[in-house]
Amino acid sequence: MSSPIDFWFSIGSTYTYLSVMRIEDVERRSRIAFRWRPFDVRTIMMEMDNIPFTNKPSKARYMWRDVERRAKMYGLPWSGIPPYPIKHLGFANRVALVGAKEGWCPLFAKATYRRWFVDGHDPSDESELSGALGEIGQDPTGILARATSDEIKAELNAQTAAAKELGIFGSPTFATGGEIFWGDDRLADAIEWHLQSSQRSGANTSARS
Amino acid sequence: MSSPIDFWFSIGSTYTYLSVMRIEDVERRSRIAFRWRPFDVRTIMMEMDNIPFTNKPSKARYMWRDVERRAKMYGLPWSGIPPYPIKHLGFANRVALVGAKEGWCPLFAKATYRRWFVDGHDPSDESELSGALGEIGQDPTGILARATSDEIKAELNAQTAAAKELGIFGSPTFATGGEIFWGDDRLADAIEWHLQSSQRSGANTSARS
Repeated sequence: MSSPIDFWFSIGSTYTYLSVMRIEDVERRSRIAFRWRPFDVRTIMMEMDNIPFTNKPSKARYMWRDVERRAKMYGLPWSGIPPYPIKHLGFANRVALVGAKEGWCPLFAKATYRRWFVDGHDPSDESELSGALGEIGQDPTGILARATSDEIKAELNAQTAAAKELGIFGSPTFATGGEIFWGDDRLADAIEWHLQSSQRSGANTSARS
Repeated sequence: MSSPIDFWFSIGSTYTYLSVMRIEDVERRSRIAFRWRPFDVRTIMMEMDNIPFTNKPSKARYMWRDVERRAKMYGLPWSGIPPYPIKHLGFANRVALVGAKEGWCPLFAKATYRRWFVDGHDPSDESELSGALGEIGQDPTGILARATSDEIKAELNAQTAAAKELGIFGSPTFATGGEIFWGDDRLADAIEWHLQSSQRSGANTSARS
């Protein structure tokens, strides 16, 4: 496998459902690893006054229909429009960040999106976060305490600042070879870029040796 | 050929460059006809306070980079970021509307986007509109006068109202089988839906006969 593609995402983003649920399959087929990088997209969007759906009913209606059609295209479950927006986006992504450090982030993200999109519950409620953690064999009490600590709060802020520094303003965003690709629908473009830039850096290495 | 897909677009939209330049090729390969439907996306976006790029530098920067990468992916020319926004969006699209009634809309739209994206000129300046019309063998004086008439102004307003009624809020949008697909990057989804709904209505017709 070559170097990984950074998969920047926030639990609470709608289109991110598609990526979270299909990315491991993409990983297997492409033989490219993805590094899961939770961040707080809401903070960035609020800072830049980027409010795509609230008070824009035709755009919101379209977004949900588009997510539904694309979920079906990928063979993912669809149970109707889930609660939106989620209440505790920062908290949910701090739990995901603990998971990224401890190695269970993909499992947790999938369990969380299943609770949100399939069961129709706000996945950022403490009971849902606990449920998702228990479901994947983790200790809810210890992890939720850690996700509330100043250390993890500071670390999510740092991740969010790093995302912003890369030019990221939405979730999901795929970062590779100095480029960012925004949206589940740019995953193929990101992979193509990644393969080409891996070839280029491979050629450079050979030329130097 | 089956029934057409409606290709709703506004000259002045950035991603529409990609669709305007490649849609005839898509038409040939898919054997699906596209009906060119100019409308005034700026009016709809202003009404809904949908301002995606102004005062959002990271999003604007990303958009141009994404358009550039995708133009290259499609083998389309790229000469750097063109002037944006264009000054007389309504006027340019009224000319396109005259073209849609008279049969030269695709030729005009391509000539206009070439002037904008390849030559780097504001395509809505009267001199550019005249140049584009002359280039495709049309009479600039007569057509620009017609595009300034109350009749054509009313007709573009009616087209814009019809687009809004369909739920359209951006350009390009592809409409088929009761669905809308927003963005050059949804053209493949629109075609897939169109083929499936054509099959369904064909099956219904057979069942009735």
